[in-house]
Amino acid sequence: MENPFHNRDVISMRDIARDELDMLFTTTDRIMKMSMQDRLDICKGKVLCYLFFEPSTRTRLSFEAAMASIGGISIGIASSKESSMEKGESLVDTVRAVDSYSDLIVIRHRLDGAARLAAEVAENPVINAGSGAEEHPTQAMLDLYTILKEKGSIDGLRIGIVGDLKYSRTVYSLLYALSKYSVDVHLIAPPLLRIRKESLYAIDSLSIREHDSIDEVIDMLDVIYVTRIQRERFPDVQEYEKVRHSYIIDARVLARAKSDAIVLHPLPRVDEVTYDVDSDARARYFKQVSYGKDVRAALLALIINATPPV
Amino acid sequence: MENPFHNRDVISMRDIARDELDMLFTTTDRIMKMSMQDRLDICKGKVLCYLFFEPSTRTRLSFEAAMASIGGISIGIASSKESSMEKGESLVDTVRAVDSYSDLIVIRHRLDGAARLAAEVAENPVINAGSGAEEHPTQAMLDLYTILKEKGSIDGLRIGIVGDLKYSRTVYSLLYALSKYSVDVHLIAPPLLRIRKESLYAIDSLSIREHDSIDEVIDMLDVIYVTRIQRERFPDVQEYEKVRHSYIIDARVLARAKSDAIVLHPLPRVDEVTYDVDSDARARYFKQVSYGKDVRAALLALIINATPPV
Amino acid sequence: MENPFHNRDVISMRDIARDELDMLFTTTDRIMKMSMQDRLDICKGKVLCYLFFEPSTRTRLSFEAAMASIGGISIGIASSKESSMEKGESLVDTVRAVDSYSDLIVIRHRLDGAARLAAEVAENPVINAGSGAEEHPTQAMLDLYTILKEKGSIDGLRIGIVGDLKYSRTVYSLLYALSKYSVDVHLIAPPLLRIRKESLYAIDSLSIREHDSIDEVIDMLDVIYVTRIQRERFPDVQEYEKVRHSYIIDARVLARAKSDAIVLHPLPRVDEVTYDVDSDARARYFKQVSYGKDVRAALLALIINATPPV
Repeated sequence: MENPFHNRDVISMRDIARDELDMLFTTTDRIMKMSMQDRLDICKGKVLCYLFFEPSTRTRLSFEAAMASIGGISIGIASSKESSMEKGESLVDTVRAVDSYSDLIVIRHRLDGAARLAAEVAENPVINAGSGAEEHPTQAMLDLYTILKEKGSIDGLRIGIVGDLKYSRTVYSLLYALSKYSVDVHLIAPPLLRIRKESLYAIDSLSIREHDSIDEVIDMLDVIYVTRIQRERFPDVQEYEKVRHSYIIDARVLARAKSDAIVLHPLPRVDEVTYDVDSDARARYFKQVSYGKDVRAALLALIINATPPV
Repeated sequence: MENPFHNRDVISMRDIARDELDMLFTTTDRIMKMSMQDRLDICKGKVLCYLFFEPSTRTRLSFEAAMASIGGISIGIASSKESSMEKGESLVDTVRAVDSYSDLIVIRHRLDGAARLAAEVAENPVINAGSGAEEHPTQAMLDLYTILKEKGSIDGLRIGIVGDLKYSRTVYSLLYALSKYSVDVHLIAPPLLRIRKESLYAIDSLSIREHDSIDEVIDMLDVIYVTRIQRERFPDVQEYEKVRHSYIIDARVLARAKSDAIVLHPLPRVDEVTYDVDSDARARYFKQVSYGKDVRAALLALIINATPPV
Repeated sequence: MENPFHNRDVISMRDIARDELDMLFTTTDRIMKMSMQDRLDICKGKVLCYLFFEPSTRTRLSFEAAMASIGGISIGIASSKESSMEKGESLVDTVRAVDSYSDLIVIRHRLDGAARLAAEVAENPVINAGSGAEEHPTQAMLDLYTILKEKGSIDGLRIGIVGDLKYSRTVYSLLYALSKYSVDVHLIAPPLLRIRKESLYAIDSLSIREHDSIDEVIDMLDVIYVTRIQRERFPDVQEYEKVRHSYIIDARVLARAKSDAIVLHPLPRVDEVTYDVDSDARARYFKQVSYGKDVRAALLALIINATPPV
């Protein structure tokens, strides 16, 4: 198979086919087995430029660590306060400028469409590291890779996604990704935070059912994917307090889950997965974080080099 | 020719002779033709420390990308909020400390004289990346290199500089640089923002004429160099609104320009070059940005190494 | 001697034995004599992650420069505003996440115990770069190394420590370190800012005397170690103004000091060592800063590699 990622923008999980994901995961496996010296040659002399207009610890550092692990260098801006956009510069001009300093741009922006716009003006490839409430495709890549490694395969699984489904860009990317597999998806969210149906167009092949409480489905799920619920989303704090217990995973809830289920979370979490769950063998969210570095290293390697690493 | 940049501070374009600029540009050409592997050996193991007390995207990232492209590493502070100067430390102490961590310091500061002061206390070379309203010499270097590449030579050209000439440090460095060549300079600015005459001492060899509107000279210029006008400079917004059209380059103005003119801008721009100009072949400001990385890489290579790269 | 630092956390100077310090200093000597190429191989491909929740110029850049000088890369967050802790994430989760991106974590935090907590949750080694008012062990390492190099040995010296002894974490680490040597320690501080006695438990072998004014002991000291006094510590500014002259080292005070005494300061200073002292040959605080890079490089080398560099 040729390398379909070479010089390509990664903006939406909608654009990526299943066999392309397969290839990414195979490349991840391969990179993890390489000697340090061989890894460091993959992107030697290459420069990643990150433009993070929204704060992030994990995603930015994960990309930097990934790039470093394959021999490249990262430069960029870690918050909008550092940038010339304070002087009134447009996103388009900022992207065009840094485009000539680097081999690839990784962008996070609070507005929908920002990553797509950046990809249109940049000559080099652009990776969307989170744009508005739309998408966060590399998160979905590492989510899927985690499921694959921790469960052995993705097809045939029952996957529950719990929490704020309306505004979580992670969830949309994950659903687009899952639509390429044969899975049953169960969405569990308070009425106010249900999935935006209009964003699911063209993935109606995916089997989706909605629920009001995790209790309804906890005993049948193979994967329990939890996302943050921000109390600011609720007009009324009392309303939030009334419903939150239905979307929290704690030891009591987990007691009813399958013994081989796995609990994932894109992190950061606040209190939607309680700390007593951390010591349960089914908790895999820190494993998930750690896969992030290698999945991103594989993606960077494939985008920057015509020939996949061997 | 020996390497006149080795271990030298770069504070003002006044200090740099024409044959030194020629050598810098030749080195830039040479570096751009080198293999990646050879480039990466030029400053292997060397460390650049940036001290940016004023925000910047372009200049800082351009230096970091330049340093990475010749094998070096950059460390530093991207805004004054990150530094110990918050604890009351003097600039002098900060410079002395980081001086021992790195091979070279790149400083931007809102006060005139800050870069010169840093150069006096640091044992390692210091590059001025913008100090107060004074100078920004590496910007002038890349401006000249762009003119040289895009027009074939600098001597004999008619060069118009439009916008805020009073407070733009870029413009002063550019004028000092142009004074080493045989060019006609036309300055176009509103009365409030005319050049500070006292800053032009000792470059009276340079032929300068002043104009009130770009319309007066647009048809004869070979280079149209545009800088930002900040509306805050005007005591009265209505005053600003009345004059601004005389200093804006748009498709209508450009229609009267020579077919082989080039439009430059140090960026960031706000609205003084309109977006419809971007698609005109004469717009070269993004080309100019991209030359910045290589001109700075050549300068860093020359300062850090006794022997110029070959 | 085996390498006692390999894969070890560095949280408190209490935990480090004298022969371990000796080994660190020997390694520092050795690293400083290595060729650049050999140095760059020591931590090639390794990643340091810094988590600086309190601002710092010197310590962060010193670690970054140290890591670069032995071939490694640094990533991290330079201020708490850049991090996901803004979204409510716990320190524990942040540490666990970046733990999988790097080979070693360097943390600074305004709260006592933060570094210890980080070390407990991280699988990789954690270095305390300043936690609350407790400790700053790598500062003490470079302090001792400076004394060793500038005075020839540590045993037998009279060491005065002047300034805010109550809240200066640097001072506690230094005292724990000095307790492993045969030295006489003189502490000079205003009554409000005297050492916290309860923090000196288990180092009562150390000979300590307390004084109200530097004048009482200046003529007998071999090492004059000065720390900042923050006027905010005083409920009454007039109170501060009344006493401050007793804790300031200026040319007049230094006139009474031994001709071979040395003046140290962890920096940043404000006005507790006046600028006229800088030109006195006994001022060694910038020398001290510069040793910091190599002592930290040696420490990083020892922690990351099983076999010490030779």
